[in-house]
Amino acid sequence: MDRLTATLTVLDYAAVAVFGATGALAAARRKHDIVTFGFFAAVTGVGGGTLRDLLIGAPVFWVHTNATLIICIAAALLVWITSRHWFAGKALLWFDAAGLGAYATYGAAKALAFGVAPVPAFVMGVLTACAGGIIRDVLAGEPSILMRPELYVTAAALASGLLVGLTLLGAPGALTVGLAAIAGFTLRGLAISRGLSLPAYKD
Amino acid sequence: MDRLTATLTVLDYAAVAVFGATGALAAARRKHDIVTFGFFAAVTGVGGGTLRDLLIGAPVFWVHTNATLIICIAAALLVWITSRHWFAGKALLWFDAAGLGAYATYGAAKALAFGVAPVPAFVMGVLTACAGGIIRDVLAGEPSILMRPELYVTAAALASGLLVGLTLLGAPGALTVGLAAIAGFTLRGLAISRGLSLPAYKD
Amino acid sequence: MDRLTATLTVLDYAAVAVFGATGALAAARRKHDIVTFGFFAAVTGVGGGTLRDLLIGAPVFWVHTNATLIICIAAALLVWITSRHWFAGKALLWFDAAGLGAYATYGAAKALAFGVAPVPAFVMGVLTACAGGIIRDVLAGEPSILMRPELYVTAAALASGLLVGLTLLGAPGALTVGLAAIAGFTLRGLAISRGLSLPAYKD
Repeated sequence: MDRLTATLTVLDYAAVAVFGATGALAAARRKHDIVTFGFFAAVTGVGGGTLRDLLIGAPVFWVHTNATLIICIAAALLVWITSRHWFAGKALLWFDAAGLGAYATYGAAKALAFGVAPVPAFVMGVLTACAGGIIRDVLAGEPSILMRPELYVTAAALASGLLVGLTLLGAPGALTVGLAAIAGFTLRGLAISRGLSLPAYKD
Repeated sequence: MDRLTATLTVLDYAAVAVFGATGALAAARRKHDIVTFGFFAAVTGVGGGTLRDLLIGAPVFWVHTNATLIICIAAALLVWITSRHWFAGKALLWFDAAGLGAYATYGAAKALAFGVAPVPAFVMGVLTACAGGIIRDVLAGEPSILMRPELYVTAAALASGLLVGLTLLGAPGALTVGLAAIAGFTLRGLAISRGLSLPAYKD
Repeated sequence: MDRLTATLTVLDYAAVAVFGATGALAAARRKHDIVTFGFFAAVTGVGGGTLRDLLIGAPVFWVHTNATLIICIAAALLVWITSRHWFAGKALLWFDAAGLGAYATYGAAKALAFGVAPVPAFVMGVLTACAGGIIRDVLAGEPSILMRPELYVTAAALASGLLVGLTLLGAPGALTVGLAAIAGFTLRGLAISRGLSLPAYKD
């Protein structure tokens, strides 16, 4: 279990870095200055987890440590000093997919650990993975990930739903976490590589 | 008083359902998938009450129960399986007006019960009724209800203001709740049926 | 120190009034009614401090007093009854600059007083000064201050960074507060008067 906790911590920081980089890239696309890079990196990196912690009544996870925000600022600097074209290809999309699966899983697990009911815990997983990107898109004035046809929220919902469902069924923690994160990553990966999407509403 | 509580609970769930349906309709207008329907239904259904609870320091009302979010998801499914044209007429507008009056009244009463000062309690009533719809419109990239000329926030303000004012004057609870909710509903109804609006600012 | 507290309180209310007025002006530009004026004044006046208090786990500063919201409503009425052209010149920009410096300083100091770690405390100062205006711009559908090339967030970051840095170095409180607020105001003033900006990102 200690190993599980360590793995989750590493995934947590990795997801903050990846989401932070996507925030800095949104600033790069619009040719902003370095302070705005940092602002977008921080909002995107910690936005989802912040909303989760406020809703479940937990202390906000980045308020009593310097590390999380320093990771966001480092991600912003990295995007600033390298060409954004390094990141414009599929590599970042795949990192983001890994962050999505890890964060949805982690968010749902943290909510359950705080005594949240199953359906809200499932929603917390989705919010943890998606809210940072949604806030980034609203602030940048771009159409949000909610508005794009390919699977994004759905992949987060799969990971979060599996975590909550398997935990309710009494499955072992490490197995549940692993399965949920991999399933979310895989579904998002299929959306990236094959344009997989759900049927849209028809009148 | 128990009867009052029961009435308020029914109104609360009904308002969540109606606001949730308006969120799903925003997703329908843009031809989204079922997951996005659910996301918009949840954000719109619980958004206003969530903001109120965070601000007054109450546990967020939908976090320790499954029922509220299930109602939102059911509203999303209902919009999905029926034609959205069923909802496009005036019927939903009138339900929404009832939800507006009930939610503004309920929000202000909950804030007073938590020891919030009168002016902020009045604002909590307005936020409870309006914030879900505002978040929905921002996420959907539509002009928000704040931007439309007809009375919406004003109707919520009337209900919330009456609840706080009559409570301060010592009026009986059931009478106050009834009067406030009906006044808000009526004013919103006049805006729907007769296009009633306040004078706009002129330079 | 009592004098410092009194000064901070005056600055706090002054900043709420000034930010509230900028919110009402956003409503005036779009020719809204008086209720929407009040809504925008309140959201802009208290938005940044509200976010800060939620994040650091403090009671939201305007919830247990009537004064703060009454100031916002008074600012909205003042903009309504006077011509908005009175405010359209540079005067309001300069008041806003003073509010920016004061609020960034105050926000960072409050966060440190609540035991927040230095890097997050720095971010709280920036958020306190900037978030109200960002929310105002998102709700009004205008390009946010984040998107404008001139220094705004950077001036808040200077004030907040100086407050946190000098406090960590053990400098006396009154000196630290004064220096930080004046530095933020001055930098924002240079942005207003000379169009000072940071270099933008280049591909």
